[in-house]
Amino acid sequence: MSKVIDFYFDFSSPYGYFASTKIDALAAKYQRKVNWHPILLGAIFKVNGCAPLTMVPLKGEYALRDFERTARFHGIPFNQPPTFPIATQSTARATVWLQQNAGADKAREFAQAAYHAYFVDGIDINDPVNLQKIAEKMGLDAAALLEGVNSPAIKEKLKHDVDQAMQRKVFGSPYIIVDGEPFWGFDRFDQLEAFLKTGSI
Amino acid sequence: MSKVIDFYFDFSSPYGYFASTKIDALAAKYQRKVNWHPILLGAIFKVNGCAPLTMVPLKGEYALRDFERTARFHGIPFNQPPTFPIATQSTARATVWLQQNAGADKAREFAQAAYHAYFVDGIDINDPVNLQKIAEKMGLDAAALLEGVNSPAIKEKLKHDVDQAMQRKVFGSPYIIVDGEPFWGFDRFDQLEAFLKTGSI
Repeated sequence: MSKVIDFYFDFSSPYGYFASTKIDALAAKYQRKVNWHPILLGAIFKVNGCAPLTMVPLKGEYALRDFERTARFHGIPFNQPPTFPIATQSTARATVWLQQNAGADKAREFAQAAYHAYFVDGIDINDPVNLQKIAEKMGLDAAALLEGVNSPAIKEKLKHDVDQAMQRKVFGSPYIIVDGEPFWGFDRFDQLEAFLKTGSI
Repeated sequence: MSKVIDFYFDFSSPYGYFASTKIDALAAKYQRKVNWHPILLGAIFKVNGCAPLTMVPLKGEYALRDFERTARFHGIPFNQPPTFPIATQSTARATVWLQQNAGADKAREFAQAAYHAYFVDGIDINDPVNLQKIAEKMGLDAAALLEGVNSPAIKEKLKHDVDQAMQRKVFGSPYIIVDGEPFWGFDRFDQLEAFLKTGSI
């Protein structure tokens, strides 16, 4: 059995989205599988006092430019969403529910579809109506999914997952942990690949 | 005459130091010269409410690891200084004084020596005693330099330079502007090179 890579991401994070388009292929190249962990940066920012990039003076304007440029540089489809950032707890809960009820592959496929809907098509993926559309397009039981999103058990599970992430010192998105080595940011994929290749860095 | 690259850096910034070891060779590869601009991130952080990386919970611990790993990855000598971050106004003023009184090449050479003293040898480069040693080793008139560092005119010039940087929306270190295109961070050197190569990105 191949060892896993832990991939933490927030659905409202552009760099998390960029990472999501590359992480599985990179992992497969080094005989690894990826565990996808949706997290809520809002909950983490409450702890470390950070703010979303685009809300920081000066940095915010640059960040918007960097999102577009980084997407072009890496050949990733991207359109800055009209509403940004957005709450993403329903999207994250939907992913968690799918992990429990449809398996990791379906959950990953849903996460990729949701990221694409938000960062390419500008759709508010936290809105239940839109979650339903994404689920139906994938042939999933959308009613069961929405019920799951609102269930106390799934809310509790996501909260637990975010707490676990914080215990592993995850503070941003994307955040990748391989064999105990942490990598924060899509711009550390070069170092991540070097580590996967040689086992040290 | 070749067009310039504007390179903004704080002497207490590890990523600024990393950039300082590569920027001139990169520029020369594309027939460019570099204007070195020491800035004071402390003054800028007062405006945008940011804090030094290592003071942010969770992020701080990761940052220390990232400094070391990034240095190894790029083959740059680096030792985390025992005191970090430090005030750098005297070092910045010394650079500005040299720019005015010894020319851009000497000023750059001094900046490189100061960065090396701090990030390799762990020396507090804001301490006048250490500034003097660096200057003497370079064969500069250390007494004149220290007098310059304390002169109202040089203090005013650095303040003016930092204000100018902020007007150009510089908010971090390293920050590079080429033909109006801004690049923040040593980890954008791949995009910076692509821009230098093709004139667009």
